Amino acid sequence: MQELLKQIGRITGPAGLLTGDDVTARSESWVTNVPCRAKAIVRPANTAEVSAVMKLCHAAGQTVVTHGGLTGLVDGAYSTPNDLVLSLERMRQIDPIDKDNRTVKVQAGAVLQSVHEVAAQAELMFPLDLGARGSATIGGNLSTNAGGNSVIRYGMAREQVLGIEAVLADGTVISSLNQVIKNNTGYDVKQLFIGSEGTLGIITQAVLRLRPLLRSRQTALVAINRFSDVTRFLRLMDAGLGGSLSAFEVMWNDFYSLIVVEGGEHGQPLGPDHAYYVLLEASGGHEDTDQARFDQALEQAYDAGLVADAVVAQSSRQREELWAIRDDIDGLVRGLNPAITFDVSLGLADMNEYVDKVRAALQALWPQLRMVVFGHLGDGNIHLVLTVGSNANDVVYAVEEVVYRELQPFAGIISAEHGIGLLKKDFLHCSRSPDEIALMRSLKNALDPLGILNPGKVLPDAKACITTAEQSA
Amino acid sequence: MQELLKQIGRITGPAGLLTGDDVTARSESWVTNVPCRAKAIVRPANTAEVSAVMKLCHAAGQTVVTHGGLTGLVDGAYSTPNDLVLSLERMRQIDPIDKDNRTVKVQAGAVLQSVHEVAAQAELMFPLDLGARGSATIGGNLSTNAGGNSVIRYGMAREQVLGIEAVLADGTVISSLNQVIKNNTGYDVKQLFIGSEGTLGIITQAVLRLRPLLRSRQTALVAINRFSDVTRFLRLMDAGLGGSLSAFEVMWNDFYSLIVVEGGEHGQPLGPDHAYYVLLEASGGHEDTDQARFDQALEQAYDAGLVADAVVAQSSRQREELWAIRDDIDGLVRGLNPAITFDVSLGLADMNEYVDKVRAALQALWPQLRMVVFGHLGDGNIHLVLTVGSNANDVVYAVEEVVYRELQPFAGIISAEHGIGLLKKDFLHCSRSPDEIALMRSLKNALDPLGILNPGKVLPDAKACITTAEQSA
Repeated sequence: MQELLKQIGRITGPAGLLTGDDVTARSESWVTNVPCRAKAIVRPANTAEVSAVMKLCHAAGQTVVTHGGLTGLVDGAYSTPNDLVLSLERMRQIDPIDKDNRTVKVQAGAVLQSVHEVAAQAELMFPLDLGARGSATIGGNLSTNAGGNSVIRYGMAREQVLGIEAVLADGTVISSLNQVIKNNTGYDVKQLFIGSEGTLGIITQAVLRLRPLLRSRQTALVAINRFSDVTRFLRLMDAGLGGSLSAFEVMWNDFYSLIVVEGGEHGQPLGPDHAYYVLLEASGGHEDTDQARFDQALEQAYDAGLVADAVVAQSSRQREELWAIRDDIDGLVRGLNPAITFDVSLGLADMNEYVDKVRAALQALWPQLRMVVFGHLGDGNIHLVLTVGSNANDVVYAVEEVVYRELQPFAGIISAEHGIGLLKKDFLHCSRSPDEIALMRSLKNALDPLGILNPGKVLPDAKACITTAEQSA
Repeated sequence: MQELLKQIGRITGPAGLLTGDDVTARSESWVTNVPCRAKAIVRPANTAEVSAVMKLCHAAGQTVVTHGGLTGLVDGAYSTPNDLVLSLERMRQIDPIDKDNRTVKVQAGAVLQSVHEVAAQAELMFPLDLGARGSATIGGNLSTNAGGNSVIRYGMAREQVLGIEAVLADGTVISSLNQVIKNNTGYDVKQLFIGSEGTLGIITQAVLRLRPLLRSRQTALVAINRFSDVTRFLRLMDAGLGGSLSAFEVMWNDFYSLIVVEGGEHGQPLGPDHAYYVLLEASGGHEDTDQARFDQALEQAYDAGLVADAVVAQSSRQREELWAIRDDIDGLVRGLNPAITFDVSLGLADMNEYVDKVRAALQALWPQLRMVVFGHLGDGNIHLVLTVGSNANDVVYAVEEVVYRELQPFAGIISAEHGIGLLKKDFLHCSRSPDEIALMRSLKNALDPLGILNPGKVLPDAKACITTAEQSA
């Protein structure tokens, strides 16, 4: 490898190649302090350097793990001492915004929050938004098809991007930097690189689609006592707000109890005894008419008997206070230590039954269980955060087996927005058929026959999944 | 082939296999009467039969052209005497709607309009909509990534589908019938089959995403005299209507003159001397507040000096009359005979300059040119429909060369929503790089190594594109 590193150093210059302590001083994850285990970290300055580096790695059969903001939650950026890490941290350029066409071209290392800020200066908005916005990069957002807080209105990362430039395993640059909304000229090859977690190519640039900056926001926290009423409330708001619904986040009572009642840092905007708390938000173009419409829609829900109690934010400060409850990750981590987190999708009608069943099944094995439930219910996506008092590998695996086994009867999805990485690949079979996985392998073989891009991630080793048959046995 | 047909007949039964006059009595296109040239038409009743037929064809190296509603405009469904046609016309089932999750599973042969009707009965809507709705099938819509009238608000067909089942060239059934909005479990393999025009697999079923049925609609026809004001008007409406803008269709004066003034069948809702006519529509959940907001946004545009004249529809009949102008395809065909049509995307800021240049370049070669321009301007997509007095192959090709050559300096796209098929494959290079096309070929080779699915479509024969270099030479 030393000879390879020498050749790479000639391409990137000394600033572009870290070794030794400069490598181990870094972590590979936003949430742990596991030091980077790779042999070296390559930091190319542009696409041409990424391409040249990949040509060398391809010739040498050298495996490469791409690093963006490292804010993923599935160990998708973990490396081994056999790998090189390729970090896009020196590729953060954001081009001037095309205001006519409402697009912006960025390098993959650009930080999400920087894109937000540049867009806002042009009175535009990049709708993709998530808690890790200050560290997450556009390349990481796209390669993991990130979700977040605005999916209900604008869709996943996949729907926010018009064009992608990516470098293939052999160094070929696929420059598919389309700038228009509609382009049906042959296969939409950019789709390959979205959500494939760096296993099919390295995203180096992207053309993002921007939207008009909406200046009016209406926010409410709404208490509801029956799950079926939560669903009805969602449908009523979705139709009544006529396109302006922009968030529908639900917290189960266990979440509200932990964060608001026990945490004690958020006041108590609503009493602690309701079954569900919905953080509802709409946004539009005209403060007055939008607020009237929002209030009108809420009143309809009251009249229909769906709402037990509600508080409507009267100021942007109050809005931030309501969001701070939903976003209090520190409070979760403090209250549920060591925490194990899940990110599942399933049908709305099944959601509450699933939560009850998984809680009962976990409690039977770990009576000390504490679990809270919350999530992007408008998108059919909930997070479970729980502790059983240990995060030893075998304990985590045993918990995962229960959580995913209980999903099977509901055809639930084991990863709604976090991806697969290393953490969930043994469970991919729970949400994908053998033929789907075989097709994924065909794509991997077609684009990266040597298997040098993010090796060992996403695609499972040959291993059976827990089936419902085994469960009943 | 006789032996193969006998084997296929055993799978499908006599109702599932047409030969002889039953084949030639059919056309292969919505707009021409060219008879079907295939050896036979196979009509499977379900996915299992499609799979069994493809296994036989794969073993025999038999080429297969899939037929849906045949409403494409790029000869993508044309067959030769060496091909079998596989028609999905017996696979039209629409499952009961899942009202909780707002999804519906359909077989690929289901007609778009039938899906609209079933959704409306459940107070829901499938937003994909286009003129050919009465014939077009869901399988065709998805395999061509159809666009249409609602893209500005809801996106292309790609964004309306959650899951797809497809049969590969070798008969493997890829059942990726995902039903949830968020599913990041490995590669999103359904993307392969969307927009690849039947060259990578045969779509047999799909899970469609439905939306709330919006009961309020506001429609106006707005005359504007400068192109830059059309763009400003679009931006103002998009921001001011706060998410409820659902159509922004623009007709150049040449279109309005032909259809309204000469056609004489549409009254004259606005005078004939304006440069541009915008058909603007919004839709939402509350008639009163929505109309107020619409009027308010229009007034803002008046005050900004953008609007020369306008008429707001006062009834659904008046709304239909305004849409009838935009949708008067018969009037176009009568006035521009024989017609040659184009479907291009480019930046809004360049659009008018492009139209002027292409008109001048065509007129220099064909002084008898008559051309009208209109389209989904809110999506950056316009259609040119023109006549030069002939539609002989060499004339059409010469016209295409001019239209696409003039697009190059603006990085325009030669097919926004119609796809490539046979008609545009020689020009694919104009919108795609050699590396992108090579990657498309890798995908084709990975999924259909024998090349039996829709042979000769989409991917170009080795042939250079007209470049701007040649143009200046």
